[in-house]
This record gives sequence, structure tokens and C-alpha cells, in this order.
Amino acid sequence: MNPEMLATKFRLRLGDKGVLMSDIGRKPYESSARHRSGKAIGVLRPQTTDDLCWVVEQLASAGESFVTQGAASGLVGAATPHSTGFQWVLSTMRLKEKLVIDPINRSATVSAGYRLSELNLAAEPLGLTFPIDLGADPSIGGMVSTNTGGSRLIRFGGVRENLLATQGVLVNPPGQQVGSSRGLRKNNTGIEWSQLFAGTFGAFGIVSEATLKLHPIQRQSATALVAVDSVATAISLVVSLESDMGEFVSAFEGISGNALRVVAAHTPGATCPFESIPEYAVLLEVSSAIPVSSGLNLEAMLMAWMEREMDRGSIQDAVIDKPLQLWRIRHAISESVQSTGRLIAFDVSVKRSDIANFRAHAITAIEHLIPTAYVCDFGHLGDGGVHLNMVIPDETHPELIEELRTTIYDLVVGEYDGSFSAEHGIGPYNQTHYARHTDAITRSLAHTLHQHLDPSRLLGNVQLD
Amino acid sequence: MNPEMLATKFRLRLGDKGVLMSDIGRKPYESSARHRSGKAIGVLRPQTTDDLCWVVEQLASAGESFVTQGAASGLVGAATPHSTGFQWVLSTMRLKEKLVIDPINRSATVSAGYRLSELNLAAEPLGLTFPIDLGADPSIGGMVSTNTGGSRLIRFGGVRENLLATQGVLVNPPGQQVGSSRGLRKNNTGIEWSQLFAGTFGAFGIVSEATLKLHPIQRQSATALVAVDSVATAISLVVSLESDMGEFVSAFEGISGNALRVVAAHTPGATCPFESIPEYAVLLEVSSAIPVSSGLNLEAMLMAWMEREMDRGSIQDAVIDKPLQLWRIRHAISESVQSTGRLIAFDVSVKRSDIANFRAHAITAIEHLIPTAYVCDFGHLGDGGVHLNMVIPDETHPELIEELRTTIYDLVVGEYDGSFSAEHGIGPYNQTHYARHTDAITRSLAHTLHQHLDPSRLLGNVQLD
Repeated sequence: MNPEMLATKFRLRLGDKGVLMSDIGRKPYESSARHRSGKAIGVLRPQTTDDLCWVVEQLASAGESFVTQGAASGLVGAATPHSTGFQWVLSTMRLKEKLVIDPINRSATVSAGYRLSELNLAAEPLGLTFPIDLGADPSIGGMVSTNTGGSRLIRFGGVRENLLATQGVLVNPPGQQVGSSRGLRKNNTGIEWSQLFAGTFGAFGIVSEATLKLHPIQRQSATALVAVDSVATAISLVVSLESDMGEFVSAFEGISGNALRVVAAHTPGATCPFESIPEYAVLLEVSSAIPVSSGLNLEAMLMAWMEREMDRGSIQDAVIDKPLQLWRIRHAISESVQSTGRLIAFDVSVKRSDIANFRAHAITAIEHLIPTAYVCDFGHLGDGGVHLNMVIPDETHPELIEELRTTIYDLVVGEYDGSFSAEHGIGPYNQTHYARHTDAITRSLAHTLHQHLDPSRLLGNVQLD
Repeated sequence: MNPEMLATKFRLRLGDKGVLMSDIGRKPYESSARHRSGKAIGVLRPQTTDDLCWVVEQLASAGESFVTQGAASGLVGAATPHSTGFQWVLSTMRLKEKLVIDPINRSATVSAGYRLSELNLAAEPLGLTFPIDLGADPSIGGMVSTNTGGSRLIRFGGVRENLLATQGVLVNPPGQQVGSSRGLRKNNTGIEWSQLFAGTFGAFGIVSEATLKLHPIQRQSATALVAVDSVATAISLVVSLESDMGEFVSAFEGISGNALRVVAAHTPGATCPFESIPEYAVLLEVSSAIPVSSGLNLEAMLMAWMEREMDRGSIQDAVIDKPLQLWRIRHAISESVQSTGRLIAFDVSVKRSDIANFRAHAITAIEHLIPTAYVCDFGHLGDGGVHLNMVIPDETHPELIEELRTTIYDLVVGEYDGSFSAEHGIGPYNQTHYARHTDAITRSLAHTLHQHLDPSRLLGNVQLD
């Protein structure tokens, strides 16, 4: 249908602020966190679930293609409209009807448009938190559809493990609401819409609301940065730390020497606390919902563990410092690396037992293809995640970059049975690699789901078949 | 096809022990843990995944109907063949090709035929455990397909939250193997077969193997039985305990006064430790992977918490005792109740914040319908689970029992947005209630999945559409 005619119809129901058609209005919704911008016909911003259902019904009936967008902080382009401009953007950021915390049930029911930080701000006075820890501040809807993981997954799990229920809206039947707000920890009654929406990147429907497990807020933590001689040693430390400090381990983040070097050089105030840059470092955190006044002293326990590991020679140097200082180093890596040149990022994972071998193997392959690449990897080592990021010369030929991607993904999936997208998910950015690394039987199942839920393929820009 | 001709074919590949056709051979596979027995054409017991795929291919090609069975400890009849005798039983109990523990990755890859206890026996020397705690000792394949929960879900989650990967075999394409053994904590690449197999009760395929998260073994625990004046008080205690003892809370089991009374009268050695039977009691457990020698003393912390709660008047009486003694009371409830007469069992759940109201409401409804019913409820209170079990007169009319079921399920789902099957799942036993309480849109999705994965409907006896 003529876009302006549709826009007029939408405005009647959503108001002027609910429909953005001008260049300046659309622009913020066309940009992408890490990739090139797209182009939208217009941006639709419903404020209620009723309006959301109505909008989806209108779009579906008119055969209009659209992409759902939350906070647009994803890194694979799944929420950015196609650059050729045939898609609408359906923004869920004004969908803020409900943020209800049930402290007795230790759960929260939250509309898609709230940000993670807003949920946590509301939960904090009740002594509760939603403990997914990310560099960005995504919307709840985006978190569910991308099944975000983050730095504290080792302790609390990702979104899927903390998702009690989801409400969504389907394209087929057009505008049909599905799912529930049930805050049940046990509900074994077959197909659960949460399991379909979580981690399918908006391919099968629009997430409008999630009911999430909350956790008691952490009342003490101890954080250390330790220097080690190799990734293999770092992996031996995660096993030792889990064995000695059990359920308290809440982060185990690996940082390569190169990544530390780049942060020290490019981020004022985030200097490396060691005398010289080590081969590899680990930012580790232990925490508890029990305060120090209970008699449990995690900092003392962590100190004792570090002394033992130093005696064994597995830790070369260590600092226990103000947690925020140390986390600042960790959080500064991505931007620091990006500021030094052309960034190529990988978000891969393998079993913890394979990390050291895989990393050595991958770095050799990178150096073989692009000898001048500067690999500054880091990652959620305790979860097997490796952000194998690097800076390459600006003039590197696109074909060589594509060969690099193919080589690394073939290595991680083909030789290590790992994942080519550990936490960022699937989007236009890695769609071709999805097709390459997903077997025909799984894609055939996805095809059946696409056909059932969106036969005209109007929804989003991720193809799982 | 003629059963004997098929049996001959199966014997050539599976051997005599792999094909049981005699009455005496089939019998153990025809019985059900809590319901009436079925009748099988024969029992097929492959020992390898290759043989499993071949058997499924043969069955599918011949258009034979079959039900997959693990340890047959489920309580809704999903693994019992139909009583009219048109189904084969495909037993996965001899499928024991793989039990591989990766201590560095803290995971195990286990063939479907191993039992939970066998996995834990193998994990224990490595300081690890698979912490799903159940009354039965099910097979790993059965645990995945029924997504078992149990008593320690409050701390460790159920199967779904601990499932890193699943391998399965499809009926369509016949004998096709799907899924993986990837032990990845982070793998965000779209549709994951685990999410389709977990909690769908064998409706879509046969689970052949699972890769599971393990956890550090608990090196200290403290267990108490506390007497309270009401379920409402018990619920206030779970909030207080989680607030004071955070991540250590590993069980919070409610036991009604009637259930305690029945156990005391019918189970030698499991006497109620209180002077008189209280209105309601809670078996609570706190535990840690950290030993007492670390300085953390959970028993002392629990004692202090109980003293505070006694001062507040919320706990009337309490015993901290040998954990096994107290758990023995808890585990004796089901059998004790069953031994006193005709058992009617419910496995429902609501939000924790709704438990007290729902329970009162339900008991009133029960007393209205069957005034002589003796309700001995207990449940995983910390997870919102209520086993609303009762003994009714032997002569109760079947129609009245059906009315009771309908009333309770309508109440829990319709008025409390709860679940009519919290952890037992769906099977012939509650199939009609599934249809009643599952919306058309969800059943339509299930229908599409059934059609895609088993168009001739040969597999199992659960219909999710």
C-alpha cells in the first residue's frame, strides 16, 4: 500500500508520536550498533499491547514487511531495516504498560520496552535483581529474542534459564496474541512459547512481555585481576576456583595481553595494574547474597585461594582492587580496540576444555591469512566464550576478510564442535554463515515454523531455513 | 506387518535379548508406575544409536505405532503402551554407549539408557553432581523428555536449565539423527533441538543422548523441619530464608499436618519429631559446595535464622537433625498416603504468592465434592508446586472423581493462572485436561510440529494438538 496512506491510518490510532516518517524521525531507528545503517519506510511505535496487535494486524493484512526493534544494541543487524528500504521498523521501546515485581514469587513481569537498567532500578529496593550483565542496556524484548548471555552467565544462566513466561504477537494469525504472564517455576504442559521466542531473533513473532526470575541482590563481592602465563593456565584456574569457591563464582573473564595493552594505551584511567603486561589475564569475581556481617568473607577466601595458586605457580601476579576499577578495564576493551583501527569481531564459543587449543589454532590461522592482524581477544572464559577480536589494516580486501570469517567459523564449528555465534545471535551480518553451519534437517524444521507463523515472510530479516 | 515377521527381522539385527515378544518378556514394559498396565506387541531394546536409528526406520517404514520407554517411572502414563495392544515398546534402557564426563567443561554426555543414579555415581569421584533430586531413579532419556524438576529446582533449576545439548532420532525422516553433543554454555544460533525435545514427552522424537551441566558437589548442608501455623506463614518463611541465606537455599518443601500424620502412622521409623502434629511443616535445606573448614558454617547460620523466626513467632517448633532422617519423612509421604486407601493425586503449581489462597480454595472445593476426602497435600513450596494428594473412599463413583479433577484443574488454571501439570508432564492420564486447558493457537503450532515430525502419528501416546 502507499506508505503515506498507511501512515495516515497508523497516525489515527497511534498519534503523531507513534508514527515517524521524516528522515530525521526515522534516522535513529535506521542505525546499527556495529554495522551499516538501513533505511525504513517509517517507524511505528505502539504504546500498548492492544495497539501492537493492531499494528501487526494492519501490516500483515497489507502485506508490508517489517523489522521489530528494541534498543537496537544488538551486534548482528537483526533489528536494523534492510538498506533497500522496503521495511517498516516496529519499535517496541514505548511498550511500557507493565513492570510488576512480585517479591514473594521473586519474579517480574515486564513489557518489552523497558530497559534492563529500568527493571533493575525497580527491583533493587526490594533486594532483588535480574542478574544478566551486559555491556549494553538492551530492552527486555530484545533480550528475550536474542537470548542474551553476558558476563555472569556462569553463575546465573542466560535469559532462557531465567524466563518463566513470554507474551508475543504473531503475524499469522495477524496480530494474534500468544503466551502468558504466568510466573511459574514449574509448568510441564508441553510447548511453551518462551522456548520458541527465546533466541530466534524475532523470526517467529514479536515479544511483547516477559516474566522473569529475579535473584537476591549480591551483598558482597570480591574481584581480582590475575596475570597468568597462558590461556591453558587460565582454564586450570576456573576449575580450581569453582572447586574451592563453588557457587560464589560469578564471573571469569579472560583478557589477552594485547587487549590489556590496547586498553592501557587508549582508555584514560584504565591502566594495567601490573608492572608489565602479562601474556594473559583473568578478571574473576566471587559474590554472594549474604553480607560480610554474616561471617562469610569472600575477599578473605579469594585472597587465600590466590595465595595457594601463587605458591603453585599458576598465578604470576594479582590485584584485588575496587571492583569497578577492574571491570572498567574489561568493559573498555571493545571500544579501545575499535578506536585503534578497523575492527573485525568474532563471538565464538567452544567447550572450556577446548579453549586453549582452539585459540592457538585460530591465531595461527589468522596470522597466516593476515600477517599484520593485531589479535586482542577476550571473552567469557568460564562459559567457553571467546571474543576473538582483532584490528586489521584499513586497506584489507573484503574478500580476504570474508575468507578469514569462513576460516574461523569452519574451524570453530567443524573442528571444535563449537558455536559461530555464542551470544550475539543470527542476523543479516552472519546469515550466510548460519546457512553454512546449520544442517538441512534443522533448517527444514525452521522452514515449517516460518511457514506456519509467517507464511508471507513479512517479519524481520533473519531466515532460519 | 505381521508382528512375528517383523520380530524375526528385528532379531536378526538386535539379537534375542533385543526383541521381547513373550508375555513374560513384555510384562515389565507394560506396567505403569501409578496407573493401569498396557499391552505391547513386543519390546525392542537397541544397544547402540545406530541400532536405534535402524529400529525407528523399520517401524516408521512399516507404519508401526510405538511408544518410547525409559525407566518407566513417569506418573502420567506417557511411556506405557496403549491397552488395546497396537503399539510396540521401544525401550532405551540398553542404550549405554556413552557416559563421558568432562571435568574441565563441568559437563557430561550421557546415553539415554543410563539412570540418574549411574550418572551421579560416575560424577562423584570428580567432585561433580547432576543435582536434579527426584523420588524415582529415571533414565536420562526420560528425564529430558519429561523435563523433570524435583526437590532442588529452587537452587539448580530443572532439566531444561541444565541441558546443554540433546541428540534425538526422528520418525520423519525415518531414523534420522538430529541434534548434537556440544557441551556449549553459550550457543545462540537459532533453533536448538533440546528445546523441542525437553518437556514434550516423546511426542516429536526419541531422545538418544543428552549433554548436561554438572555442578560442584555439595560439601556441607543443614536440614531442618519447622512447624508453622499455616501455609501463609510458610510462604513468608521462604522469602525470609532466601533473603537471609541467599544462594544456599536448596530445598523448601511443604508438608501438611495430615501428610505428617499419615507418615507417622504408616511408616516405621519416620515418626514426626514434634510433640504434636502441627498445622503445617516445612522441610528446608541449605547447602554449599564449600566445606565447613572454609569458615562457612551453614548449620550455625540456619540456627540463627530459626531463632530469629521463633522470636518473631513465625516458627512454632523446629528440629535440626540428621538430614537423611528428615528427608525420609518427606520421601515417605507418597507411599504412606497410598497405603491408607484410594489415592487421588494432583501435581499443580501456582505463583508462590498465590499458594496459600489457592490451597484454601482447593480444599474447600474438595470437601464440597467429597466430604470424606482426606487431603494430605505436600509440595515443592519454594517452587510453587503443590502435590494436592488425597485419600477418598474406595466406592467413590468415577464420575465424581472426574468432576473433582475438572474442578481442581479449572481452579488452578482458570482462577490462579497456574499449571495443571507442574512436573509430571502430559500423558494419556491427563490428555483430556491438556486439551481443555491449552489454547487453540498453541495446539495449532503443536499440530504443525506433529505433522512435520511424525505425519503418520506413529510415535508415542501424547497428542499436543
